Amino acid sequence: MTLVNGQPCESIDAHDRGLAYGDGVFRTLRTQAGQPLWWSDHYATLAADCAALKLACPDEAVLHREACAVAEAGAGVVKIVITRGVGVRGYAPSGGQAVTRLVLSAPLPPHAGADASQAITARWCSLQLARQPRLAGIKHLNRLENVLARAEWDDPAIIEGLLCDTDGMVIGGVMSNLFWARDGVLFTPDLGQCGVAGVARTRLLRAAARRGIPTRIERLPPAAILAADELMICNSLIGVRRVARLGDANWSPTGWTDTLNAALYEDN
Amino acid sequence: MTLVNGQPCESIDAHDRGLAYGDGVFRTLRTQAGQPLWWSDHYATLAADCAALKLACPDEAVLHREACAVAEAGAGVVKIVITRGVGVRGYAPSGGQAVTRLVLSAPLPPHAGADASQAITARWCSLQLARQPRLAGIKHLNRLENVLARAEWDDPAIIEGLLCDTDGMVIGGVMSNLFWARDGVLFTPDLGQCGVAGVARTRLLRAAARRGIPTRIERLPPAAILAADELMICNSLIGVRRVARLGDANWSPTGWTDTLNAALYEDN
Repeated sequence: MTLVNGQPCESIDAHDRGLAYGDGVFRTLRTQAGQPLWWSDHYATLAADCAALKLACPDEAVLHREACAVAEAGAGVVKIVITRGVGVRGYAPSGGQAVTRLVLSAPLPPHAGADASQAITARWCSLQLARQPRLAGIKHLNRLENVLARAEWDDPAIIEGLLCDTDGMVIGGVMSNLFWARDGVLFTPDLGQCGVAGVARTRLLRAAARRGIPTRIERLPPAAILAADELMICNSLIGVRRVARLGDANWSPTGWTDTLNAALYEDN
Repeated sequence: MTLVNGQPCESIDAHDRGLAYGDGVFRTLRTQAGQPLWWSDHYATLAADCAALKLACPDEAVLHREACAVAEAGAGVVKIVITRGVGVRGYAPSGGQAVTRLVLSAPLPPHAGADASQAITARWCSLQLARQPRLAGIKHLNRLENVLARAEWDDPAIIEGLLCDTDGMVIGGVMSNLFWARDGVLFTPDLGQCGVAGVARTRLLRAAARRGIPTRIERLPPAAILAADELMICNSLIGVRRVARLGDANWSPTGWTDTLNAALYEDN
C-alpha cells in the first residue's frame, strides 16, 4: 500500500522535484506487527535531514499514523520519502510549494529475514564515493553512487559491498554503516565527507556510550579494517551483522556482534 | 502536455527508480515552431548518458515524435527523462525492467526569451562540486548540488552562479557551461571530475574546430577566468551569453559572444 500526501495512490506528479533532481530525503524502517521500529530515532533523523535541505518536515504524528497504516501485518519495511514537491522547471526552489510525502510498504528483503546471528560475506567496491560535506550524512534521494556500486556484483552470496571515498578512506557499505572492534575499542568511519549516517549507527554509538565502550569515529584506510578483531555492518532492516569474510580476509566471532545486537534494542 | 511511455499522463509510478535514487538521465531542449532544436546532438548525448549508466536508450524516432507531440506551438522547452523504471526496493538494478520514458513541455524561462545579445550578470557560488569521475559529464537525475547552489541567491538580476569543485578548480554554471577567451584562445573547463557536458558546449567545441579557433579544455582556478578577455555561458535554452559582470569584475564586449553565437547555429 502507498500513501501520497495521505491519500492511497500509486503514483506521484511527473513534475515532482524528487524525480527531476532527487530533491528530497528518505527513510527505510523495519516494522514489526504493524509498528515501526525505532520510530523516535527515525523521525529525528528525518527531521534533521529535512532541515539540512531546508525542507519542511511533516508532522511526526501524521507520519507515524501513515507508517502504521501502510505497514504489513507481520515483519516488513516502510519507506518514507519527503520531496520539495511539484515546482516549475529549473533548479531554483520556489520556496512556496508544499513538500510531497510518500509512505509505502515493501516486504522484508531476503537478507533481513534470516537469523541475525548469521554472519555475512562482503566485498570491496571499486567505485569511490565523492566527497561532498554539504550532503554528507544525509539520506537524500541522490543515490546513483549506491546504484553503481551495488551493480558491481550479482553473486547472491555476497550481501554487502564496502566503499572508500575518493581519498581512499573507508566510509561504509552500499546499504549499511560499518563498525569494527580492535583491542576493546569500537570504530566507525567519520561521515563528514560522504556516506549516510543511519539510525542503527546512531543507536549503536549511543549504546556504546551508555555501556562505557570506548568509541572512535575516524577516517581510516582499508588496512585498519583488515586489522580488526571483528567487523560488522548495521542498518535498520538487518540490525548488526558480523562480516565473516571480506575478499580474501576471514574473521571468527569474538562476541562483539552479539553484544552490539543486544545493545541496539535496549531503548526505543 | 506530458507523455509517460508514450501515453498522455501527468504522473509516474511511486516506485520508479528515478524518484527513489535519481537513477536516470535527462535532457532539456529548446523547441522552435514545434520542432526540437539540435535534435541529433541531444539524442546522441542522451544515448551516451544512458550507456554510461547502462540504461536502454529509447529509439530515436520514438523520442523525436514524442518531443514534437508535446512541444508548444511557438518557442518552448521540452524535457526528456529516462529512468531505470519501476523496480523492487533496494539499490541493485534488476536488469529486467523496462526504462521509464517521460517527455514533457514547459514554457521558455524568462532569461531565455530575451535578445541573445544581451549580456548577463553572474556570481560565484560557495558550494563546491564533489569530484566523481564515474558520473562526471553525465546529465543524470542526481542534481541536489545544483539545487543547493541555485538556492544561494534570489536576486532576479543575477542569471547564473559559477561553481568550482572541491579542489577549487572552475567547472561551470549551475545551469550552463562556461567558456572564456584570452589572447585569441577559447577556454572551457575540463569536466572529467564533475559538471555536465551540455550540448551547447559540444556544439561550440565543434564549431571552434571547424573555424580554426584554438581551444583549450583545462582545470584552472578562478583567477584564470578573471584574466579573460571575454567570459560566456551557454546552454541549449539561452545559446551563448556574454557575462558582463561577475562579482566585482566587469567586462566589455570584444566580439567573441557574437562570433560563437553565430557558430552555434551553423549546423543542425
